[in-house]
Amino acid sequence: MIRAVELANDTVRVIDQTVLPHEVRILTLEDPDAVARAIREMRVRGAPAIGVTAAFGLVLAALRHEGEPGPALDRHIDQTAATLTGTRPTAVNLTWAIERMRHCYAENRTLPLIAIREALRREALAIQAQDEEANRRMGHHGASLVPPRARVLTHCNTGNLATAGFGTALGVIRTAHDTGHEVHVWVDETRPYLQGARLTAWELGQLGIPHTLVTDSMAGLLMARGLVDLVIVGADRVTARGDVANKIGTYPLAVLAEYHHVPFYVAAPLSTVDLSIKTGDQVVIEERAAREVTHVGDTEVAPPGTAVFNPSFDVTPHYLVDAIVTEVGVLRPPFGPTLRAVKEGRPPRER
Amino acid sequence: MIRAVELANDTVRVIDQTVLPHEVRILTLEDPDAVARAIREMRVRGAPAIGVTAAFGLVLAALRHEGEPGPALDRHIDQTAATLTGTRPTAVNLTWAIERMRHCYAENRTLPLIAIREALRREALAIQAQDEEANRRMGHHGASLVPPRARVLTHCNTGNLATAGFGTALGVIRTAHDTGHEVHVWVDETRPYLQGARLTAWELGQLGIPHTLVTDSMAGLLMARGLVDLVIVGADRVTARGDVANKIGTYPLAVLAEYHHVPFYVAAPLSTVDLSIKTGDQVVIEERAAREVTHVGDTEVAPPGTAVFNPSFDVTPHYLVDAIVTEVGVLRPPFGPTLRAVKEGRPPRER
Repeated sequence: MIRAVELANDTVRVIDQTVLPHEVRILTLEDPDAVARAIREMRVRGAPAIGVTAAFGLVLAALRHEGEPGPALDRHIDQTAATLTGTRPTAVNLTWAIERMRHCYAENRTLPLIAIREALRREALAIQAQDEEANRRMGHHGASLVPPRARVLTHCNTGNLATAGFGTALGVIRTAHDTGHEVHVWVDETRPYLQGARLTAWELGQLGIPHTLVTDSMAGLLMARGLVDLVIVGADRVTARGDVANKIGTYPLAVLAEYHHVPFYVAAPLSTVDLSIKTGDQVVIEERAAREVTHVGDTEVAPPGTAVFNPSFDVTPHYLVDAIVTEVGVLRPPFGPTLRAVKEGRPPRER
Repeated sequence: MIRAVELANDTVRVIDQTVLPHEVRILTLEDPDAVARAIREMRVRGAPAIGVTAAFGLVLAALRHEGEPGPALDRHIDQTAATLTGTRPTAVNLTWAIERMRHCYAENRTLPLIAIREALRREALAIQAQDEEANRRMGHHGASLVPPRARVLTHCNTGNLATAGFGTALGVIRTAHDTGHEVHVWVDETRPYLQGARLTAWELGQLGIPHTLVTDSMAGLLMARGLVDLVIVGADRVTARGDVANKIGTYPLAVLAEYHHVPFYVAAPLSTVDLSIKTGDQVVIEERAAREVTHVGDTEVAPPGTAVFNPSFDVTPHYLVDAIVTEVGVLRPPFGPTLRAVKEGRPPRER
């Protein structure tokens, strides 16, 4: 399957997710500014995918640098890291990947330029490979949560396009499907950006996984009619106690799931876990342009000048989450001690 | 303010709500089939408005009839009534208005054609006038539920456009605003048909009532942040025990309101109350075409051929409703005995 982002011929290539599903357009990004722009404009999106893309952006910074390494390159790396960090505030994978690249740079900055470039390239490719591997492990662990016949509701896009490859929540669905579970997916269209309608429906179609598109407002009726066996979503940031910042509309699903006794699961690699903050209200929630709400494509759907509030994410408190699927296993509440343990490399509590 | 539907020069004139807010286009409907089509295609929508429109459709049936009254006109009225009833299954105002017109016809069918026409015209205009009057009374009663400063969340469109005039839930908001309450309205865009974005935002703009447009998925975040003081919506059918069928997305709002201890109110004229069914699961929920979900205007937002589930309404059980605002007063739970009383013309219980 096509990758959301790749490092190829000393450029970064991304699928332009703003024109999917009607066109598969590959953008070739030549320099870090182009990479930052692609993230900001959501041509590449999804917490893990933008982490990998930013890492590649720092590789480009070193590749485009001319002259000897030293203070000038230090500054260029710093500035690029700052620019990339500023593109989207909510997903922690972005800062996590950038910090990893900065650390790699710091360790190699006294080497010849060619060796610095090679070290950064290797680190970025490692981030990419590890993310894909984490996804596959999440898929394996998470599939155990999916009954043999399951109607699964998901929100936003958490598949191949949102990650280095394979997917988080969609990776779990995919693994369940591939290992013989009879899965049917309710795809939330995910307003305003329609990642569900545009991207998830497209990926599921490519994978041959049965699915039905609904508007975000239909989850209540589906659950009331007993048509949802579980909800699984991704995450942009998981706090130390297990609060989950994710695409706007996730929190209402969690409340509805609680109300209808439907299990609510989150699939997130450990790179999404931010132990530096405890509660969800400490997460910066990005607010995006009014136009995402007032326009769909070129069609204006509200009177010109209508005031809009457009937060891109909401926070689901830990007590509404039944399990967090990670690459080291399925974590169960209370999440605090377990998240700390696994982030420190210790095994998750046995249950 | 412009009316959603009018009887004028022996034709029915409706504002084409499919092209709002960008164009105010008046459609002139010459015969009952054109009226049925306009309802089916949602050029006119809103439970009370389609009731009035259908009543006008039956006036047109008599106006277009040629020759003497008698069996041929009986059949024409019957057929027109059946066609109009079949246009939209969920709103009970439609069948209520049609039954009223049939009753009027039955009482006058032996008169000369000109007198039959006049009787039907008078009955239809009475339905229209009574609906508008009911709305104004609902506004008056309902405004007492709105605090002096209130952030009000509403869903779909329940204003002038949805009724004979003034509005149900929006009428309450409007009355509160007009009587000095400081009201700010969160307008749910209301996918898939975007009645909130296209119609409610437009009406509130015309009325000068402060409002902010959000996607349906944002209500959870708004309530979690304490930014919603009350939710008020309309209804397409209220059952004998107070279950409320209303625009898809209403039920999740009711669950969220319950979860966040936000009052959840329904504004509905007694013509919306259907004592013949007790529970919401007896309400026929209309399912509309996939295209409403897969396309916005001419923009296709999902891969071609994507399977869609598009129920137009959901059911909010009576125990999630804090009050039903009617033209005879604000009804409180338990709704069963009170709804029966007021439908029989007795006063609502005192509290």
